[in-house]
Amino acid sequence: MFDSANFKHHISKPVFKREEGKLREALLGAQFDLKEQHRFPVLILIAGVEGAGKGETVNLLTEWMDPRHIHTSAFGNPSDEERERPANWRFWRALPPKGEIGVFFGAWHTMPIVQRVMGQIDEGEFSYAIGEIRRLEQMLCDEGVLLLKYWFHLSKAQQKKRLQSLEQDPDTSWRVTDVEWDYFKLYDKFIKVCDPFLRQTSTGQAPWIVVPGADPRYRALTVGRHLLAAMRERLDEKPSKLLPDKTPPLPAPADKVNVLSSLSLDQPMTRTDYKKQLEKWQGRLNRLSRDPRFKTLSVVVVFEGNDSAGKGGAIRRVTGALDARCYGNISVAAPTEEERAQPYLWRFWRHLPRQGRFAFFDRSWYGRVLVERIEGFCPEADWMRAYSEINDFEDSLIRHNTVVVKFWLAISKQEQLRRFKERKVVAFKRFKITEEDWRNRKKWGVYETAVCDMVDRTSTASAPWTLVEANNKYFARIKVLKTMCDALEQALERAEHKKKR
Amino acid sequence: MFDSANFKHHISKPVFKREEGKLREALLGAQFDLKEQHRFPVLILIAGVEGAGKGETVNLLTEWMDPRHIHTSAFGNPSDEERERPANWRFWRALPPKGEIGVFFGAWHTMPIVQRVMGQIDEGEFSYAIGEIRRLEQMLCDEGVLLLKYWFHLSKAQQKKRLQSLEQDPDTSWRVTDVEWDYFKLYDKFIKVCDPFLRQTSTGQAPWIVVPGADPRYRALTVGRHLLAAMRERLDEKPSKLLPDKTPPLPAPADKVNVLSSLSLDQPMTRTDYKKQLEKWQGRLNRLSRDPRFKTLSVVVVFEGNDSAGKGGAIRRVTGALDARCYGNISVAAPTEEERAQPYLWRFWRHLPRQGRFAFFDRSWYGRVLVERIEGFCPEADWMRAYSEINDFEDSLIRHNTVVVKFWLAISKQEQLRRFKERKVVAFKRFKITEEDWRNRKKWGVYETAVCDMVDRTSTASAPWTLVEANNKYFARIKVLKTMCDALEQALERAEHKKKR
Repeated sequence: MFDSANFKHHISKPVFKREEGKLREALLGAQFDLKEQHRFPVLILIAGVEGAGKGETVNLLTEWMDPRHIHTSAFGNPSDEERERPANWRFWRALPPKGEIGVFFGAWHTMPIVQRVMGQIDEGEFSYAIGEIRRLEQMLCDEGVLLLKYWFHLSKAQQKKRLQSLEQDPDTSWRVTDVEWDYFKLYDKFIKVCDPFLRQTSTGQAPWIVVPGADPRYRALTVGRHLLAAMRERLDEKPSKLLPDKTPPLPAPADKVNVLSSLSLDQPMTRTDYKKQLEKWQGRLNRLSRDPRFKTLSVVVVFEGNDSAGKGGAIRRVTGALDARCYGNISVAAPTEEERAQPYLWRFWRHLPRQGRFAFFDRSWYGRVLVERIEGFCPEADWMRAYSEINDFEDSLIRHNTVVVKFWLAISKQEQLRRFKERKVVAFKRFKITEEDWRNRKKWGVYETAVCDMVDRTSTASAPWTLVEANNKYFARIKVLKTMCDALEQALERAEHKKKR
Repeated sequence: MFDSANFKHHISKPVFKREEGKLREALLGAQFDLKEQHRFPVLILIAGVEGAGKGETVNLLTEWMDPRHIHTSAFGNPSDEERERPANWRFWRALPPKGEIGVFFGAWHTMPIVQRVMGQIDEGEFSYAIGEIRRLEQMLCDEGVLLLKYWFHLSKAQQKKRLQSLEQDPDTSWRVTDVEWDYFKLYDKFIKVCDPFLRQTSTGQAPWIVVPGADPRYRALTVGRHLLAAMRERLDEKPSKLLPDKTPPLPAPADKVNVLSSLSLDQPMTRTDYKKQLEKWQGRLNRLSRDPRFKTLSVVVVFEGNDSAGKGGAIRRVTGALDARCYGNISVAAPTEEERAQPYLWRFWRHLPRQGRFAFFDRSWYGRVLVERIEGFCPEADWMRAYSEINDFEDSLIRHNTVVVKFWLAISKQEQLRRFKERKVVAFKRFKITEEDWRNRKKWGVYETAVCDMVDRTSTASAPWTLVEANNKYFARIKVLKTMCDALEQALERAEHKKKR
């Protein structure tokens, strides 16, 4: 992959001066159009060997373009805020919105490569990381991000020369420490890891662009011109360049038996019994949340369900058991302007809890395969790929010791009608019922199909759905509390087991 | 992933009879249109637990449709022919062409799952296999294959009941042996491996469809109806369902230094010296090919180069050193009708050599990123993804102990003109020069760019390109022979090393 990058390239100063002027003007123009069109973001990944001019090139780009709309993020050692969340959280929070350019120094590829070179992870873990990166980048591209990946390269001799010359210049000698020379000793090992890495993470939509890094003017022109061409191509996109959507349909069930129809929605529980049980399970949940082992975990709870199924009430009974400082409630409605300018999952990543904390989502990322699917807010290809994107998302939470609990609160069509009518007449409940609720009710059947598909495709061994029979609110709330306690208990045991090993 | 498949489903006999008639007619209609349109093939993967009715369902499908255009392949233990080639070879040779339906029992997913359940491979190898499967299926979908993956499921209780009832019926008792019961004991382990497998290999374009397998009529209607809907959707595809092509451009080099321009094409070698060297290196190659260790290897050699660069002559000097029974020559021209009805790489897979054999490709799969790119025979998105598909292809060869040697024979524009003119006047060389050669010559510059991109993107550590300075034919042929010997020697050493471990 690095053959031609090892050559001696050179651009003379006068040529560069002349070309730079043209390039700068064109880049500014493209950046202006990007902002105006507000259709997609540009994300630039900067990677490669030490001393190959990564920083200098990014500085030039920032100099050439309007710095207000180009955002550089360097990812060194993660902060405590970042360490307490899944590894990719810090990249999600730094993603550029539509119309803007983001530059990532050392993104998701850095850790797996460094850890593999150092022997901290084995071939298998490296393979898994590569798979994750491919899925993440595929998702970003599918979401419309123009992803440009530049790999700055130096041959071994070039890197040695570069480090020596930095060392000799009193102005730059501070940049070369023992760490840099230690890295240099690993050059061959590094290349051996990077070659298959680049091969496996280069795709048609997001190929690695290897940039020869030895000549400052050459590498600057290479990156600048490529960035310009890539932006221009997307900005001037002709409608002729379209590919057919190849998403197959999901199966229609051959009978009426499904995860919803199999539920007995009317479950008995008296008010007296409820009061007793509530005290018992809230007490237990509270004790679990104060368990010392809980400090290494976090909990993400999803509440979905039919309109008026009692999501809010159930959440309040759970949070009622907890210290108010240890949880957050996220009520998911239509996305904000800021959220609409980002890939779909962005607005959920931003709310992920730190360790020792709970996050309760009243509606969630499952809106993609429920309301967005049913109302046609996104094309079939987008919600179809969302199932695996969501599974990947939850998998990355679980791998980071996050307990994921998902509830579907189910009521019957008759029970919903009763509640809607009640809401209409009871003054303090009137705000809870809108025209939209009545419209959704007419789509009961298609919602049912969407819910069944969702459960079939996203109920995984590590993040299963719990279906809650909710015609009786008392029963539903106690089942939610019990499920929470069980999930937490299991997670605490696992955490202890892990610690012991 | 299996929640709803565990339910008790049932379709009554009269309902089934009625529905079957309609379904059968519609399926035959879809099959007819598929044949008529000749636009894409349908590939059906059948997977899942034992006793869930996989065979019965496929029998029904074959019964319902025109058996001349539906081809079922069962993949049990590989034959010796198959074992001596990369694992996926047997799937490639069974791929259905455009207009036809292929049914694969136990395809590429079977081995990794079984091996993981049996503990024969670790998590890492399992991860790598999942990555390979995702890339393979992505490629098939990109090539237009309608890929439908059915996973037949039974709950543990259902599977037990099924095995017992098969055992009790004298007509079917032969189907249940100790092997089946041994597998049953692994049920929980199997599900534990399959759950993340299904999650990671379900994509928007190729989702797994989980089919509840307990009721024969239910599972038949489920698969039949889904197959029909999926075929109809693709057959009736509306041009409105188009997604933009998101392929970014490749970088334009900022100077004239590249892998080709860096070569000194005129290398000295006299005829006398050549004769001596030829004897030496041919002798060495011959000895290497008769090394007992060679029986575990195979060799794939790619010759690409400028028109009239001497590919044929070089190949003859290599094969001249070998036993005629141990090699094959594959001259790649425009694809045949049969080849055009298959995914791009199919026509190369079919020519892969068995162990102990050589295959020499005079032009190769690199046509995709050379002539097809330049002449616009395929869209940008297709040749852009080809770089990683080719790398994956060669990687699967190398992982199967195939030595991959790739030559680019480079001559100067002037030397080409001299040779063209010579061919025009020398009678026995006249067939070697056509109008097309002169047309290609006019595109010298764009070919150069394409060749440089090709080398940059497909010269990997395990399958590097060797650029051969070929203005002097003698020098070129000796360099080719030498490179072949070196590659073989290294491979033989590796093979021995592997054996010793």
